[in-house]
Amino acid sequence: MKVSVLGCGRWGSFLAWYNYRLGNKVISWGTEGTPSYDVLLRERKNEYVEFPDGITLTSDLEFAVANADTVIISISSQGLRGFLKRVTRCDAKGKTFVLCMKGIEESTGKRLSEVAIEEGIDRENIAVWVGPGHIQSFVKGIPNCMVIDSYRKDLTHRLADCFKSDLIRFYYGGDIIGTEVGAAAKNVMGIVAGILDGMNLGELKGPLMSRGAREVARLTKALGGSEFSAYGLCHLGDYETTLFSKYSHNRMWGELYAKGEKFDRLAEGVATAGALTLLAEKYGVDMPITKQVHELVLHNTPPKQALAMLFDRNAKEEFYL
Amino acid sequence: MKVSVLGCGRWGSFLAWYNYRLGNKVISWGTEGTPSYDVLLRERKNEYVEFPDGITLTSDLEFAVANADTVIISISSQGLRGFLKRVTRCDAKGKTFVLCMKGIEESTGKRLSEVAIEEGIDRENIAVWVGPGHIQSFVKGIPNCMVIDSYRKDLTHRLADCFKSDLIRFYYGGDIIGTEVGAAAKNVMGIVAGILDGMNLGELKGPLMSRGAREVARLTKALGGSEFSAYGLCHLGDYETTLFSKYSHNRMWGELYAKGEKFDRLAEGVATAGALTLLAEKYGVDMPITKQVHELVLHNTPPKQALAMLFDRNAKEEFYL
Repeated sequence: MKVSVLGCGRWGSFLAWYNYRLGNKVISWGTEGTPSYDVLLRERKNEYVEFPDGITLTSDLEFAVANADTVIISISSQGLRGFLKRVTRCDAKGKTFVLCMKGIEESTGKRLSEVAIEEGIDRENIAVWVGPGHIQSFVKGIPNCMVIDSYRKDLTHRLADCFKSDLIRFYYGGDIIGTEVGAAAKNVMGIVAGILDGMNLGELKGPLMSRGAREVARLTKALGGSEFSAYGLCHLGDYETTLFSKYSHNRMWGELYAKGEKFDRLAEGVATAGALTLLAEKYGVDMPITKQVHELVLHNTPPKQALAMLFDRNAKEEFYL
Repeated sequence: MKVSVLGCGRWGSFLAWYNYRLGNKVISWGTEGTPSYDVLLRERKNEYVEFPDGITLTSDLEFAVANADTVIISISSQGLRGFLKRVTRCDAKGKTFVLCMKGIEESTGKRLSEVAIEEGIDRENIAVWVGPGHIQSFVKGIPNCMVIDSYRKDLTHRLADCFKSDLIRFYYGGDIIGTEVGAAAKNVMGIVAGILDGMNLGELKGPLMSRGAREVARLTKALGGSEFSAYGLCHLGDYETTLFSKYSHNRMWGELYAKGEKFDRLAEGVATAGALTLLAEKYGVDMPITKQVHELVLHNTPPKQALAMLFDRNAKEEFYL
């Protein structure tokens, strides 16, 4: 396979490294002048991976797209639409696009594959690759499980079979709506986990997992997906990585928030909470946890008050819709 | 309410303490000559709670049963049948029995409420109270969420409303089969989590949560329960407490197993893995994780080999039944 990975941040650089390890011909693309690209250009490595000589590093988008059959995109979710306007001006026709990203467009509530379709990528050629895994661990040889999903079963199978290795065991997803919503929403739960950690209430992460996945399942169903997908690798399977890991940016964002501090890196869950709240209102779905995160971001609610609103004491049916 | 708590180990002593805090009239029963009873008799406290004077401590089972309208049982699961033969010889008629225990009878694969019914307790009067929570945290005032379930909606609601407080928020369960199977099965997943921790593969707990809950959901459905219950507080909601906590006996059992050591306290998941494997075979349900734990206990399989059998590299549909 000829694979170009667009985006060379934490995940993008890993994906280039991983695809090279699989034996693919790999181009890694980044934007000149950005720290993540410049460090790779200068040192052929970053804090996560070292690029073997065989990986072609470029800032020429046309070159990267033209010389691939499979284009993996790993950039910030909220920037996808604008970026795709540039990509589709290249020789993109007929190529397979794999979105290795977790988010929902904040202004529209659209899933990332929907954004891609609106920007002119053929839906038959779009797949998503999500699920758990720390780059820091993969490069040490610690394996994990991930999921590929798309609008076409044969594409899902083909890609999962191509990308599998001793490091990543793939499952075939069967519900791209649920897979994308779940992958995005886990970042919101990561923020809540961080708030709980910051308040020394880490064990409430148990109920958070159960109630959090539940509201994501409700939304997914309302959007036409499967109520089970939130319990798959895309969401629940990513909870260890997101809710319990020191590496998770979203969890860290929440923890610092609880302590009255600010986290200076991108926490995708902040925008995703807004997007999901929009969808929840549009489809009339009860998502108390997600909504609370959105409120808290908007109004800078004191964490103790935000938590009290979540943890009221009235008993409830566990599986209401 | 007049509540007698039968069993005064870790959970039993907490439940007596908690019910007294709720304002109930409380009797705590234990067996004379056992360490957990003797320490309470001598010091009116154990390593977890201190008994206020208002709690009546006794080793007289007839007295404890006769003087309660609600009997909470918290003993070792595998001992339940024999114990109930003693209880039903007391003045037990018409009283409410609440099982605060997590297990499946190893020799028969029966749920604990089924065992109780077989031993003569009226099914209309049986409830279960399960879900997450560390006693060590409750006594410090850290709240959590739990679930009550039974064969009768009105009993479920009445008990949850009686037992709720600022420490425990209750959800009403709606599927006693799923609630009991889920509660028992989480101990099996706790053992696997410990094995992963012991092998420095803790991040595989992400996939474990997703795939583990999935196989429990499959079994529950085959038994006539709801496929969703495993994702409720009884199972998934208890994963933080079981898979991530230093207090969990089952997790610790697994961790020491991985390190070639032996854990000397009761790990209910060992017997439960056997019981669930029995059920899985009887009902033709695929439960690779649970079965592997049972095999490992039986044959003392090296942990690395056990893990390799779980983590084969063939891609799979994520939500096969």
